[in-house]
Amino acid sequence: MRHFKATLAYDGTDFHGWQIQPNRSTVQGVLKDALAEIEGVPVDVQGAGRTDAGVHALGQVASFALANPIPTDNLLRAMNRLLPEAVRVVSLEQASREFHARHSASGKFYEYRVWRDAICPPFVARYVYHHPYPLDEAAMCKAAERFVGRHDFRSLAAAGGDEVASPVRTIFSSALSRDGERLIYHVRGDGFLYHMVRNIVGTLLDVGRCRLKADDVSAILDNKRRSAAGATAPAKGLCLVRVEYPESTENRLEP
Amino acid sequence: MRHFKATLAYDGTDFHGWQIQPNRSTVQGVLKDALAEIEGVPVDVQGAGRTDAGVHALGQVASFALANPIPTDNLLRAMNRLLPEAVRVVSLEQASREFHARHSASGKFYEYRVWRDAICPPFVARYVYHHPYPLDEAAMCKAAERFVGRHDFRSLAAAGGDEVASPVRTIFSSALSRDGERLIYHVRGDGFLYHMVRNIVGTLLDVGRCRLKADDVSAILDNKRRSAAGATAPAKGLCLVRVEYPESTENRLEP
Repeated sequence: MRHFKATLAYDGTDFHGWQIQPNRSTVQGVLKDALAEIEGVPVDVQGAGRTDAGVHALGQVASFALANPIPTDNLLRAMNRLLPEAVRVVSLEQASREFHARHSASGKFYEYRVWRDAICPPFVARYVYHHPYPLDEAAMCKAAERFVGRHDFRSLAAAGGDEVASPVRTIFSSALSRDGERLIYHVRGDGFLYHMVRNIVGTLLDVGRCRLKADDVSAILDNKRRSAAGATAPAKGLCLVRVEYPESTENRLEP
Repeated sequence: MRHFKATLAYDGTDFHGWQIQPNRSTVQGVLKDALAEIEGVPVDVQGAGRTDAGVHALGQVASFALANPIPTDNLLRAMNRLLPEAVRVVSLEQASREFHARHSASGKFYEYRVWRDAICPPFVARYVYHHPYPLDEAAMCKAAERFVGRHDFRSLAAAGGDEVASPVRTIFSSALSRDGERLIYHVRGDGFLYHMVRNIVGTLLDVGRCRLKADDVSAILDNKRRSAAGATAPAKGLCLVRVEYPESTENRLEP
């Protein structure tokens, strides 16, 4: 068997999230279908992050193994021919047999986009949360920085995640910026609990609306109850930009 | 009654075109629904161009009249609140009672986008025709210029259009250019027959594939039979960018 690392971009609008579910279109599901068609038998596919329904990806990572001797370049093309156009394999490489998209990951980088103008163009609407109302963006910037560091993120995690061994995560960077009408939140960490990015954004929006202050972030983290933080921001603004792996697992075996 | 000129942007992917049809979602249909909700009675809506299913718009123009005394700015906001997010009123102004979106139009400007890279990103896929195969783009550029001028465009019109008084149209500009992986065709004319832009693009693609030569364009126009030209290019690459009106009909009555 050859092991592969596939980097995927997808428009999550019309999928019920990453994780395979019976009778529902999911990203993992369409990938498994495409690979089963190529391999002739069902193929296990692991994803780095279980993105929610409506969440997008520029750099989701999937791992799988195939017996089929198809050259890597042809495999990429065959997968893209079989996948719906809303999901693209943007790169594909052979990986070591130990490589696992989720377990090997050392970090993830997410982007959340808020559209600030009164009118949201239809060609952008699927990929942003449209919030044209007043926000104190300077206060939100200040609050965003307070999430950096190693914290217990229980107050920002929804029930329903299944990696609940520990609610402690390390955020390497957390910052808000503007790109024209886009208010963009970038967060990079060693891992994220279920709904954690969307709950951080919901909390930042509450700061922007002056319902919370930047200085409240520490107390929210210390509180450890979900009710202390802001509401979950809509899925459509979120995008998994990149998954990071330590050098050691990156010793790729090019064919 | 006050008369209005609305400029609309829409993502045509999920609509059965502009023109209202029973039991199908159309752009004109959702506009009429929104305006009926505001006016309390059905409202006639005229569009500048009857875009096909899947065709997009950045600057489609619609005209209508209302008895409701709602201020123009509030009307724009009310319409956008009632419309699906795939359709936006990007600007709205009062117009003279003679203004008619289609009859008053003196020109239209369309863009057709071909994506040339092997992989088409999911966030672009709805708005381009993905054609990663070899094309002689220099020959296509030459052929594009040959459409400029006043011609009988019968060989580039599909049956089914209903403005068939005369098949003669004047093309003011017709040019191909590159923007990264996008091969872009821009065409501006005093009017277009049914499927005419898509058939011009299909003909340009045949030139790119060396099935036709740039010098064949005159003979295709002279032939006046649809079979002489190339196939109809896919709808999803086409976008109505702008509709033009003579200054005289533009004497807008701002409230």
